[in-house]
Amino acid sequence: MKVLLVFAHPESRSLSGALRDVAIRELEAQGHEVRVSDLYAEGWKSEIDRADFPSLEPDARLIPVVASKKGFEANTLTADVKAEIEKLLWADTLILQFPLWWFAMPAILKGWVDRVVAYGFAYGVGEHSDRRWGDRYGEGTLVGKRAMLMVTAGGWEEHYAPRGINGPIDDLLFPINHGILYYPGYDVLPPFVVYQVDRLDETGFEPVAERLRERMRTLATTAPIPYRRQNGGDYLIPSMNLRPELGDPGANGFALHSNQAGDVS
Amino acid sequence: MKVLLVFAHPESRSLSGALRDVAIRELEAQGHEVRVSDLYAEGWKSEIDRADFPSLEPDARLIPVVASKKGFEANTLTADVKAEIEKLLWADTLILQFPLWWFAMPAILKGWVDRVVAYGFAYGVGEHSDRRWGDRYGEGTLVGKRAMLMVTAGGWEEHYAPRGINGPIDDLLFPINHGILYYPGYDVLPPFVVYQVDRLDETGFEPVAERLRERMRTLATTAPIPYRRQNGGDYLIPSMNLRPELGDPGANGFALHSNQAGDVS
Repeated sequence: MKVLLVFAHPESRSLSGALRDVAIRELEAQGHEVRVSDLYAEGWKSEIDRADFPSLEPDARLIPVVASKKGFEANTLTADVKAEIEKLLWADTLILQFPLWWFAMPAILKGWVDRVVAYGFAYGVGEHSDRRWGDRYGEGTLVGKRAMLMVTAGGWEEHYAPRGINGPIDDLLFPINHGILYYPGYDVLPPFVVYQVDRLDETGFEPVAERLRERMRTLATTAPIPYRRQNGGDYLIPSMNLRPELGDPGANGFALHSNQAGDVS
Repeated sequence: MKVLLVFAHPESRSLSGALRDVAIRELEAQGHEVRVSDLYAEGWKSEIDRADFPSLEPDARLIPVVASKKGFEANTLTADVKAEIEKLLWADTLILQFPLWWFAMPAILKGWVDRVVAYGFAYGVGEHSDRRWGDRYGEGTLVGKRAMLMVTAGGWEEHYAPRGINGPIDDLLFPINHGILYYPGYDVLPPFVVYQVDRLDETGFEPVAERLRERMRTLATTAPIPYRRQNGGDYLIPSMNLRPELGDPGANGFALHSNQAGDVS
Protein backbone atom coordinates (compact mmCIF):
# COMPACT_ATOMS: atom_id res chain seq x y z
CA MET A 1 0.00 0.00 0.00
CA LYS A 2 0.91 3.64 -0.48
CA VAL A 3 -0.02 5.73 2.54
CA LEU A 4 -0.11 9.51 2.85
CA LEU A 5 -0.15 10.77 6.43
CA VAL A 6 -1.05 14.44 6.85
CA PHE A 7 0.24 15.60 10.22
CA ALA A 8 -1.10 18.76 11.84
CA HIS A 9 0.54 19.33 15.22
CA PRO A 10 3.01 22.14 15.91
CA GLU A 11 5.29 20.07 18.16
CA SER A 12 7.11 16.99 16.95
CA ARG A 13 8.00 16.06 20.56
CA SER A 14 4.31 15.65 21.41
CA LEU A 15 2.11 12.64 21.95
CA SER A 16 0.87 13.28 18.42
CA GLY A 17 4.43 13.14 17.14
CA ALA A 18 5.08 9.90 19.03
CA LEU A 19 1.92 8.32 17.63
CA ARG A 20 2.81 9.46 14.13
CA ASP A 21 6.17 7.71 14.45
CA VAL A 22 4.52 4.53 15.79
CA ALA A 23 2.17 4.50 12.81
CA ILE A 24 4.94 5.08 10.26
CA ARG A 25 7.19 2.40 11.75
CA GLU A 26 4.41 -0.16 11.75
CA LEU A 27 3.36 0.65 8.20
CA GLU A 28 6.94 0.39 6.95
CA ALA A 29 7.44 -2.85 8.85
CA GLN A 30 4.48 -4.18 6.89
CA GLY A 31 6.21 -3.21 3.65
CA HIS A 32 4.03 -0.22 2.85
CA GLU A 33 5.31 3.02 1.35
CA VAL A 34 4.64 6.05 3.52
CA ARG A 35 4.81 9.74 2.67
CA VAL A 36 4.17 12.45 5.26
CA SER A 37 2.85 15.97 4.81
CA ASP A 38 4.00 17.66 8.01
CA LEU A 39 2.02 20.87 7.68
CA TYR A 40 3.71 22.88 10.41
CA ALA A 41 7.22 21.74 9.44
CA GLU A 42 6.52 22.68 5.84
CA GLY A 43 5.12 26.09 6.75
CA TRP A 44 1.78 25.31 5.16
CA LYS A 45 -0.25 28.41 4.24
CA SER A 46 -3.72 28.08 5.71
CA GLU A 47 -5.74 30.82 4.08
CA ILE A 48 -7.38 30.69 0.68
CA ASP A 49 -6.67 34.09 -0.83
CA ARG A 50 -5.70 35.77 -4.09
CA ALA A 51 -2.16 34.41 -3.89
CA ASP A 52 -3.62 30.95 -4.51
CA PHE A 53 -4.71 31.95 -7.98
CA PRO A 54 -1.78 33.57 -9.81
CA SER A 55 -3.72 33.70 -13.07
CA LEU A 56 -6.53 35.80 -11.57
CA GLU A 57 -6.54 39.31 -13.01
CA PRO A 58 -5.39 41.85 -10.39
CA ASP A 59 -8.69 43.74 -10.47
CA ALA A 60 -10.95 40.71 -10.81
CA ARG A 61 -13.28 39.84 -8.00
CA LEU A 62 -12.13 36.70 -6.20
CA ILE A 63 -14.83 34.05 -6.22
CA PRO A 64 -13.02 31.14 -4.55
CA VAL A 65 -15.04 28.33 -6.11
CA VAL A 66 -14.68 29.79 -9.62
CA ALA A 67 -10.98 30.57 -9.17
CA SER A 68 -10.40 27.05 -7.83
CA LYS A 69 -12.12 25.52 -10.87
CA LYS A 70 -10.18 27.63 -13.37
CA GLY A 71 -6.89 27.14 -11.55
CA PHE A 72 -7.25 23.38 -11.44
CA GLU A 73 -8.33 23.11 -15.07
CA ALA A 74 -5.54 25.35 -16.32
CA ASN A 75 -2.99 23.76 -14.00
CA THR A 76 -2.16 27.16 -12.53
CA LEU A 77 -2.71 26.36 -8.86
CA THR A 78 0.33 27.05 -6.68
CA ALA A 79 3.16 24.54 -6.37
CA ASP A 80 2.36 23.61 -2.75
CA VAL A 81 -1.23 22.75 -3.65
CA LYS A 82 -0.23 20.82 -6.77
CA ALA A 83 2.25 18.78 -4.73
CA GLU A 84 -0.48 17.77 -2.28
CA ILE A 85 -2.87 16.86 -5.09
CA GLU A 86 -0.15 14.69 -6.60
CA LYS A 87 0.31 12.93 -3.24
CA LEU A 88 -3.42 12.31 -2.92
CA LEU A 89 -3.45 10.70 -6.36
CA TRP A 90 -0.36 8.65 -5.50
CA ALA A 91 -1.67 7.30 -2.18
CA ASP A 92 -4.23 4.56 -1.93
CA THR A 93 -4.71 5.35 1.76
CA LEU A 94 -4.95 8.76 3.42
CA ILE A 95 -4.54 9.38 7.14
CA LEU A 96 -5.33 12.79 8.62
CA GLN A 97 -3.75 13.13 12.06
CA PHE A 98 -4.64 16.07 14.28
CA PRO A 99 -5.46 17.21 17.80
CA LEU A 100 -9.15 18.00 18.27
CA TRP A 101 -9.21 21.73 18.97
CA TRP A 102 -12.62 23.22 19.66
CA PHE A 103 -14.30 20.04 18.43
CA ALA A 104 -12.77 20.35 14.96
CA MET A 105 -9.48 20.17 13.11
CA PRO A 106 -6.78 22.82 13.69
CA ALA A 107 -6.82 25.78 11.32
CA ILE A 108 -3.72 24.61 9.47
CA LEU A 109 -5.37 21.33 8.50
CA LYS A 110 -8.63 23.04 7.58
CA GLY A 111 -6.50 25.23 5.36
CA TRP A 112 -5.02 22.16 3.73
CA VAL A 113 -8.55 20.95 2.98
CA ASP A 114 -9.79 24.36 1.81
CA ARG A 115 -6.87 24.79 -0.60
CA VAL A 116 -6.05 21.27 -1.81
CA VAL A 117 -9.48 19.77 -2.29
CA ALA A 118 -10.02 21.88 -5.39
CA TYR A 119 -13.05 22.30 -7.62
CA GLY A 120 -12.78 20.01 -10.63
CA PHE A 121 -10.39 17.80 -8.71
CA ALA A 122 -12.45 16.54 -5.82
CA TYR A 123 -15.74 18.37 -6.11
CA GLY A 124 -17.78 19.76 -8.95
CA VAL A 125 -17.20 16.58 -10.98
CA GLY A 126 -19.66 14.30 -12.77
CA GLU A 127 -22.95 14.76 -14.55
CA HIS A 128 -26.23 16.02 -13.12
CA SER A 129 -29.44 14.36 -14.30
CA ASP A 130 -32.61 12.95 -12.83
CA ARG A 131 -30.57 9.91 -11.76
CA ARG A 132 -27.30 11.49 -10.65
CA TRP A 133 -26.22 14.60 -8.74
CA GLY A 134 -22.60 14.66 -9.79
CA ASP A 135 -19.94 12.25 -8.61
CA ARG A 136 -19.90 12.72 -4.88
CA TYR A 137 -20.66 10.86 -1.65
CA GLY A 138 -19.29 7.49 -2.64
CA GLU A 139 -18.21 8.33 -6.17
CA GLY A 140 -15.60 10.71 -7.52
CA THR A 141 -11.94 11.23 -8.21
CA LEU A 142 -10.70 9.41 -5.12
CA VAL A 143 -13.00 6.39 -5.28
CA GLY A 144 -11.37 3.08 -4.45
CA LYS A 145 -9.05 4.69 -1.90
CA ARG A 146 -9.31 4.52 1.89
CA ALA A 147 -9.10 7.28 4.47
CA MET A 148 -8.94 7.40 8.24
CA LEU A 149 -8.65 9.99 11.00
CA MET A 150 -6.16 9.80 13.87
CA VAL A 151 -7.43 12.14 16.55
CA THR A 152 -6.13 13.15 19.97
CA ALA A 153 -8.53 14.82 22.40
CA GLY A 154 -7.96 16.42 25.77
CA GLY A 155 -11.40 15.57 27.14
CA TRP A 156 -12.82 12.46 28.73
CA GLU A 157 -14.19 9.68 26.53
CA GLU A 158 -17.47 9.71 28.49
CA HIS A 159 -18.03 13.36 27.52
CA TYR A 160 -18.01 12.24 23.85
CA ALA A 161 -20.40 9.33 24.45
CA PRO A 162 -23.83 9.12 22.76
CA ARG A 163 -25.36 11.16 25.61
CA GLY A 164 -22.18 13.04 26.57
CA ILE A 165 -22.25 16.82 26.76
CA ASN A 166 -19.71 17.44 23.98
CA GLY A 167 -21.78 15.43 21.55
CA PRO A 168 -20.91 11.94 20.27
CA ILE A 169 -17.46 11.76 18.73
CA ASP A 170 -18.85 10.12 15.58
CA ASP A 171 -21.18 13.05 15.06
CA LEU A 172 -18.43 15.60 15.73
CA LEU A 173 -16.27 13.89 13.10
CA PHE A 174 -19.11 13.39 10.60
CA PRO A 175 -18.50 16.68 8.77
CA ILE A 176 -14.94 15.48 8.12
CA ASN A 177 -15.56 11.78 7.55
CA HIS A 178 -18.67 12.19 5.42
CA GLY A 179 -18.41 15.79 4.22
CA ILE A 180 -14.71 15.94 3.31
CA LEU A 181 -13.55 12.32 2.83
CA TYR A 182 -16.56 10.33 1.63
CA TYR A 183 -17.62 13.25 -0.58
CA PRO A 184 -14.82 12.83 -3.17
CA GLY A 185 -15.03 9.03 -3.00
CA TYR A 186 -12.92 7.70 -0.13
CA ASP A 187 -14.01 4.67 1.81
CA VAL A 188 -13.79 6.02 5.35
CA LEU A 189 -12.57 3.79 8.15
CA PRO A 190 -13.69 4.25 11.76
CA PRO A 191 -11.44 6.86 13.39
CA PHE A 192 -8.60 6.13 15.79
CA VAL A 193 -9.24 8.37 18.80
CA VAL A 194 -7.24 8.87 22.00
CA TYR A 195 -8.84 10.75 24.90
CA GLN A 196 -7.42 12.64 27.90
CA VAL A 197 -4.12 12.97 26.12
CA ASP A 198 -2.78 15.52 28.60
CA ARG A 199 -2.93 12.85 31.30
CA LEU A 200 -1.25 10.08 29.32
CA ASP A 201 2.04 8.95 30.85
CA GLU A 202 4.57 6.36 29.66
CA THR A 203 2.65 3.50 31.23
CA GLY A 204 -0.47 4.61 29.47
CA PHE A 205 1.26 5.18 26.14
CA GLU A 206 2.14 1.60 25.23
CA PRO A 207 -1.43 0.22 25.15
CA VAL A 208 -2.45 3.19 22.98
CA ALA A 209 0.53 2.57 20.68
CA GLU A 210 -0.37 -1.09 20.38
CA ARG A 211 -3.97 -0.24 19.55
CA LEU A 212 -2.64 2.07 16.83
CA ARG A 213 -0.27 -0.60 15.45
CA GLU A 214 -3.22 -2.97 15.18
CA ARG A 215 -5.15 -0.34 13.20
CA MET A 216 -2.14 0.09 10.90
CA ARG A 217 -1.92 -3.68 10.36
CA THR A 218 -5.61 -3.82 9.41
CA LEU A 219 -5.84 -0.70 7.24
CA ALA A 220 -6.62 -2.75 4.15
CA THR A 221 -9.15 -5.04 5.80
CA THR A 222 -11.07 -2.90 8.31
CA ALA A 223 -14.68 -2.43 7.20
CA PRO A 224 -15.41 1.19 6.26
CA ILE A 225 -18.27 3.19 7.77
CA PRO A 226 -21.29 2.13 5.68
CA TYR A 227 -22.24 5.57 4.39
CA ARG A 228 -25.01 5.53 1.82
CA ARG A 229 -24.01 6.23 -1.79
CA GLN A 230 -25.69 9.34 -3.11
CA ASN A 231 -26.52 7.92 -6.53
CA GLY A 232 -27.26 4.38 -5.35
CA GLY A 233 -31.02 4.85 -5.03
CA ASP A 234 -31.32 5.78 -1.34
CA TYR A 235 -31.85 9.50 -1.99
CA LEU A 236 -34.52 11.46 -3.81
CA ILE A 237 -33.15 13.63 -6.63
CA PRO A 238 -32.80 16.62 -6.66
CA SER A 239 -33.78 17.17 -3.02
CA MET A 240 -31.11 14.67 -1.93
CA ASN A 241 -33.29 13.70 1.02
CA LEU A 242 -33.11 10.13 2.24
CA ARG A 243 -36.14 8.22 0.98
CA PRO A 244 -38.86 8.23 3.65
CA GLU A 245 -38.93 4.45 3.97
CA LEU A 246 -35.20 4.25 4.78
CA GLY A 247 -33.33 4.62 8.04
CA ASP A 248 -34.08 3.59 11.58
CA PRO A 249 -37.30 5.41 12.55
CA GLY A 250 -35.55 6.50 15.76
CA ALA A 251 -32.59 7.91 13.90
CA ASN A 252 -32.20 11.48 12.75
CA GLY A 253 -29.49 13.77 11.55
CA PHE A 254 -26.11 12.36 10.69
CA ALA A 255 -26.86 8.77 11.71
CA LEU A 256 -29.35 8.40 8.86
CA HIS A 257 -26.56 8.54 6.30
CA SER A 258 -24.79 5.49 7.62
CA ASN A 259 -26.63 2.32 6.69
CA GLN A 260 -25.81 0.30 9.79
CA ALA A 261 -28.91 -1.82 9.43
CA GLY A 262 -28.22 -2.70 5.81
CA ASP A 263 -31.66 -1.60 4.63
CA VAL A 264 -32.44 -1.30 0.91
CA SER A 265 -34.81 0.90 -1.00
CA MET B 1 -25.61 47.37 22.21
CA LYS B 2 -21.95 46.82 21.37
CA VAL B 3 -21.54 44.40 18.51
CA LEU B 4 -18.36 42.71 17.30
CA LEU B 5 -18.61 41.26 13.80
CA VAL B 6 -15.81 38.86 12.84
CA PHE B 7 -15.67 38.66 9.05
CA ALA B 8 -13.90 35.79 7.32
CA HIS B 9 -14.19 36.13 3.56
CA PRO B 10 -11.24 36.99 1.29
CA GLU B 11 -13.22 39.26 -1.04
CA SER B 12 -14.94 42.41 0.15
CA ARG B 13 -16.83 42.65 -3.19
CA SER B 14 -18.61 39.37 -2.45
CA LEU B 15 -22.11 38.53 -1.34
CA SER B 16 -20.60 38.07 2.10
CA GLY B 17 -19.17 41.57 1.94
CA ALA B 18 -22.53 42.98 0.83
CA LEU B 19 -24.35 41.22 3.66
CA ARG B 20 -21.77 42.43 6.15
CA ASP B 21 -22.44 46.01 5.05
CA VAL B 22 -26.21 45.51 5.27
CA ALA B 23 -25.82 44.23 8.83
CA ILE B 24 -23.53 47.05 9.91
CA ARG B 25 -25.77 49.74 8.40
CA GLU B 26 -28.85 48.34 10.12
CA LEU B 27 -27.12 48.00 13.47
CA GLU B 28 -25.80 51.55 13.29
CA ALA B 29 -29.23 52.82 12.23
CA GLN B 30 -30.54 51.28 15.44
CA GLY B 31 -27.95 53.22 17.43
CA HIS B 32 -25.67 50.30 18.21
CA GLU B 33 -21.88 50.49 18.25
CA VAL B 34 -20.23 48.11 15.79
CA ARG B 35 -16.63 46.97 15.56
CA VAL B 36 -15.42 44.65 12.80
CA SER B 37 -12.54 42.17 12.81
CA ASP B 38 -11.92 41.67 9.09
CA LEU B 39 -9.57 38.71 9.33
CA TYR B 40 -8.32 38.68 5.75
CA ALA B 41 -7.90 42.46 5.57
CA GLU B 42 -5.95 42.39 8.82
CA GLY B 43 -3.70 39.54 7.66
CA TRP B 44 -4.77 37.33 10.54
CA LYS B 45 -2.34 34.51 11.33
CA SER B 46 -4.22 31.24 11.41
CA GLU B 47 -1.80 28.76 12.92
CA ILE B 48 -1.14 28.24 16.62
CA ASP B 49 2.62 27.86 16.83
CA ARG B 50 5.63 28.85 18.95
CA ALA B 51 5.40 32.46 17.79
CA ASP B 52 2.16 32.74 19.76
CA PHE B 53 4.03 32.27 23.02
CA PRO B 54 7.01 34.65 23.13
CA SER B 55 7.76 33.71 26.74
CA LEU B 56 8.21 30.02 25.94
CA GLU B 57 11.85 28.94 26.34
CA PRO B 58 13.42 28.24 22.94
CA ASP B 59 14.12 24.60 23.77
CA ALA B 60 10.92 23.96 25.68
CA ARG B 61 8.40 21.53 24.26
CA LEU B 62 5.32 23.37 23.01
CA ILE B 63 2.17 22.09 24.72
CA PRO B 64 -0.46 24.43 23.28
CA VAL B 65 -2.94 24.20 26.15
CA VAL B 66 -0.25 24.82 28.77
CA ALA B 67 1.38 27.63 26.79
CA SER B 68 -2.02 29.24 26.27
CA LYS B 69 -2.76 29.12 30.01
CA LYS B 70 0.61 30.61 30.96
CA GLY B 71 0.48 33.22 28.24
CA PHE B 72 -2.96 34.40 29.23
CA GLU B 73 -2.17 34.49 32.96
CA ALA B 74 1.11 36.35 32.45
CA ASN B 75 -0.40 38.65 29.81
CA THR B 76 2.27 37.61 27.32
CA LEU B 77 0.05 36.53 24.46
CA THR B 78 0.74 38.34 21.20
CA ALA B 79 -0.73 41.77 20.49
CA ASP B 80 -3.13 40.53 17.81
CA VAL B 81 -4.64 37.96 20.18
CA LYS B 82 -4.86 40.43 23.07
CA ALA B 83 -6.66 42.92 20.83
CA GLU B 84 -9.29 40.30 19.92
CA ILE B 85 -9.77 39.29 23.55
CA GLU B 86 -10.29 42.95 24.43
CA LYS B 87 -12.94 43.21 21.70
CA LEU B 88 -14.73 40.11 22.98
CA LEU B 89 -14.87 41.61 26.47
CA TRP B 90 -16.07 44.95 25.05
CA ALA B 91 -18.87 43.50 22.92
CA ASP B 92 -22.15 42.31 24.37
CA THR B 93 -22.99 40.64 21.06
CA LEU B 94 -20.68 38.63 18.80
CA ILE B 95 -21.41 37.80 15.17
CA LEU B 96 -19.21 35.33 13.28
CA GLN B 97 -19.73 35.70 9.54
CA PHE B 98 -18.24 33.16 7.16
CA PRO B 99 -18.81 31.09 4.03
CA LEU B 100 -19.41 27.41 4.81
CA TRP B 101 -16.40 25.65 3.24
CA TRP B 102 -16.38 21.88 3.52
CA PHE B 103 -19.20 22.03 6.06
CA ALA B 104 -17.16 24.11 8.50
CA MET B 105 -15.66 27.55 8.96
CA PRO B 106 -12.74 28.69 6.78
CA ALA B 107 -9.27 28.04 8.16
CA ILE B 108 -8.67 31.71 8.93
CA LEU B 109 -11.68 31.84 11.25
CA LYS B 110 -10.81 28.52 12.87
CA GLY B 111 -7.41 30.04 13.49
CA TRP B 112 -9.05 33.01 15.16
CA VAL B 113 -10.90 30.61 17.46
CA ASP B 114 -7.84 28.43 18.11
CA ARG B 115 -5.69 31.42 19.04
CA VAL B 116 -8.08 33.88 20.71
CA VAL B 117 -10.24 31.60 22.81
CA ALA B 118 -7.37 31.05 25.24
CA TYR B 119 -7.10 28.77 28.27
CA GLY B 120 -7.88 30.72 31.43
CA PHE B 121 -9.83 33.25 29.37
CA ALA B 122 -12.64 31.21 27.91
CA TYR B 123 -11.90 27.64 28.92
CA GLY B 124 -10.23 26.02 31.87
CA VAL B 125 -12.09 28.33 34.27
CA GLY B 126 -14.14 27.56 37.38
CA GLU B 127 -14.05 24.93 40.07
CA HIS B 128 -14.46 21.19 39.72
CA SER B 129 -16.43 19.36 42.39
CA ASP B 130 -19.17 16.76 42.64
CA ARG B 131 -21.63 19.52 41.68
CA ARG B 132 -19.68 21.46 39.07
CA TRP B 133 -17.36 20.65 36.18
CA GLY B 134 -15.83 24.07 35.73
CA ASP B 135 -17.59 27.08 34.29
CA ARG B 136 -18.56 25.98 30.81
CA TYR B 137 -21.61 25.28 28.69
CA GLY B 138 -23.80 28.10 29.92
CA GLU B 139 -21.42 29.59 32.45
CA GLY B 140 -18.05 31.24 32.06
CA THR B 141 -16.25 34.43 31.16
CA LEU B 142 -18.64 35.47 28.40
CA VAL B 143 -21.91 34.73 30.16
CA GLY B 144 -24.63 37.30 29.65
CA LYS B 145 -23.47 38.04 26.11
CA ARG B 146 -25.13 36.91 22.88
CA ALA B 147 -23.61 35.31 19.80
CA MET B 148 -24.87 34.46 16.34
CA LEU B 149 -23.54 32.95 13.13
CA MET B 150 -24.05 34.49 9.68
CA VAL B 151 -23.38 31.73 7.16
CA THR B 152 -23.39 31.60 3.37
CA ALA B 153 -23.55 28.20 1.70
CA GLY B 154 -23.24 27.19 -1.95
CA GLY B 155 -25.51 24.17 -1.64
CA TRP B 156 -29.27 23.79 -1.73
CA GLU B 157 -31.29 24.29 1.45
CA GLU B 158 -32.98 20.90 0.93
CA HIS B 159 -29.59 19.17 1.08
CA TYR B 160 -29.19 20.56 4.61
CA ALA B 161 -32.68 19.50 5.73
CA PRO B 162 -33.25 17.02 8.58
CA ARG B 163 -33.00 14.11 6.09
CA GLY B 164 -30.75 15.90 3.56
CA ILE B 165 -27.53 14.24 2.45
CA ASN B 166 -25.18 16.93 3.81
CA GLY B 167 -26.64 16.55 7.28
CA PRO B 168 -28.97 19.06 8.96
CA ILE B 169 -27.54 22.58 9.09
CA ASP B 170 -28.21 22.81 12.83
CA ASP B 171 -26.13 19.68 13.42
CA LEU B 172 -23.32 20.89 11.16
CA LEU B 173 -23.20 24.14 13.12
CA PHE B 174 -23.55 22.49 16.55
CA PRO B 175 -19.79 22.16 17.11
CA ILE B 176 -19.53 25.93 16.64
CA ASN B 177 -22.76 27.04 18.34
CA HIS B 178 -22.52 24.69 21.31
CA GLY B 179 -18.84 23.74 21.35
CA ILE B 180 -17.26 27.16 20.74
CA LEU B 181 -19.91 29.78 21.64
CA TYR B 182 -22.11 28.24 24.35
CA TYR B 183 -19.03 26.68 25.98
CA PRO B 184 -17.59 29.97 27.35
CA GLY B 185 -21.04 31.29 28.24
CA TYR B 186 -22.66 32.95 25.23
CA ASP B 187 -26.38 32.74 24.68
CA VAL B 188 -26.45 31.48 21.09
CA LEU B 189 -29.09 32.76 18.69
CA PRO B 190 -30.37 30.68 15.79
CA PRO B 191 -28.03 31.18 12.83
CA PHE B 192 -28.72 33.35 9.81
CA VAL B 193 -28.08 31.12 6.79
CA VAL B 194 -28.24 31.87 3.06
CA TYR B 195 -28.14 28.96 0.60
CA GLN B 196 -27.18 28.69 -3.08
CA VAL B 197 -25.25 31.89 -2.82
CA ASP B 198 -23.53 31.39 -6.17
CA ARG B 199 -26.93 31.68 -7.86
CA LEU B 200 -28.13 34.75 -6.01
CA ASP B 201 -28.72 37.73 -8.32
CA GLU B 202 -29.78 41.29 -7.56
CA THR B 203 -33.46 40.37 -7.51
CA GLY B 204 -32.73 37.61 -5.03
CA PHE B 205 -30.50 39.77 -2.86
CA GLU B 206 -33.04 42.22 -1.50
CA PRO B 207 -35.28 39.66 0.27
CA VAL B 208 -32.17 38.14 1.84
CA ALA B 209 -30.96 41.56 2.91
CA GLU B 210 -34.34 42.35 4.44
CA ARG B 211 -34.34 39.05 6.34
CA LEU B 212 -30.90 39.97 7.67
CA ARG B 213 -32.02 43.47 8.67
CA GLU B 214 -34.88 41.93 10.63
CA ARG B 215 -32.40 39.67 12.46
CA MET B 216 -30.26 42.71 13.26
CA ARG B 217 -33.31 44.57 14.62
CA THR B 218 -34.16 41.64 16.88
CA LEU B 219 -30.68 40.72 18.12
CA ALA B 220 -31.54 41.66 21.68
CA THR B 221 -34.93 39.94 21.74
CA THR B 222 -34.57 36.75 19.69
CA ALA B 223 -34.82 33.69 21.92
CA PRO B 224 -31.52 31.81 22.13
CA ILE B 225 -31.18 28.11 21.33
CA PRO B 226 -32.24 26.42 24.61
CA TYR B 227 -29.02 24.51 25.24
CA ARG B 228 -28.91 22.76 28.59
CA ARG B 229 -26.65 24.24 31.26
CA GLN B 230 -23.92 21.84 32.28
CA ASN B 231 -24.13 22.56 35.99
CA GLY B 232 -27.89 23.07 36.12
CA GLY B 233 -28.73 19.51 37.13
CA ASP B 234 -29.40 17.91 33.72
CA TYR B 235 -26.05 16.09 33.55
CA LEU B 236 -24.44 13.42 35.69
CA ILE B 237 -21.06 14.46 37.11
CA PRO B 238 -18.31 13.54 36.27
CA SER B 239 -19.50 11.54 33.24
CA MET B 240 -21.32 14.62 31.90
CA ASN B 241 -23.91 12.36 30.34
CA LEU B 242 -27.46 13.66 30.09
CA ARG B 243 -29.56 12.10 32.83
CA PRO B 244 -31.37 9.04 31.49
CA GLU B 245 -34.83 10.44 32.17
CA LEU B 246 -34.20 13.59 30.11
CA GLY B 247 -34.53 14.23 26.42
CA ASP B 248 -36.97 13.09 23.79
CA PRO B 249 -36.73 9.27 23.67
CA GLY B 250 -36.44 9.55 19.89
CA ALA B 251 -33.60 12.06 20.06
CA ASN B 252 -29.94 11.23 20.03
CA GLY B 253 -26.69 12.99 19.47
CA PHE B 254 -26.57 16.75 19.36
CA ALA B 255 -30.33 17.29 19.64
CA LEU B 256 -30.32 15.98 23.22
CA HIS B 257 -28.41 19.02 24.41
CA SER B 258 -31.04 21.48 23.34
CA ASN B 259 -34.02 21.41 25.68
CA GLN B 260 -36.72 22.16 23.11
CA ALA B 261 -39.37 20.40 25.15
CA GLY B 262 -38.57 22.29 28.33
CA ASP B 263 -38.20 19.12 30.40
CA VAL B 264 -36.78 19.23 33.93
CA SER B 265 -34.84 16.74 35.99
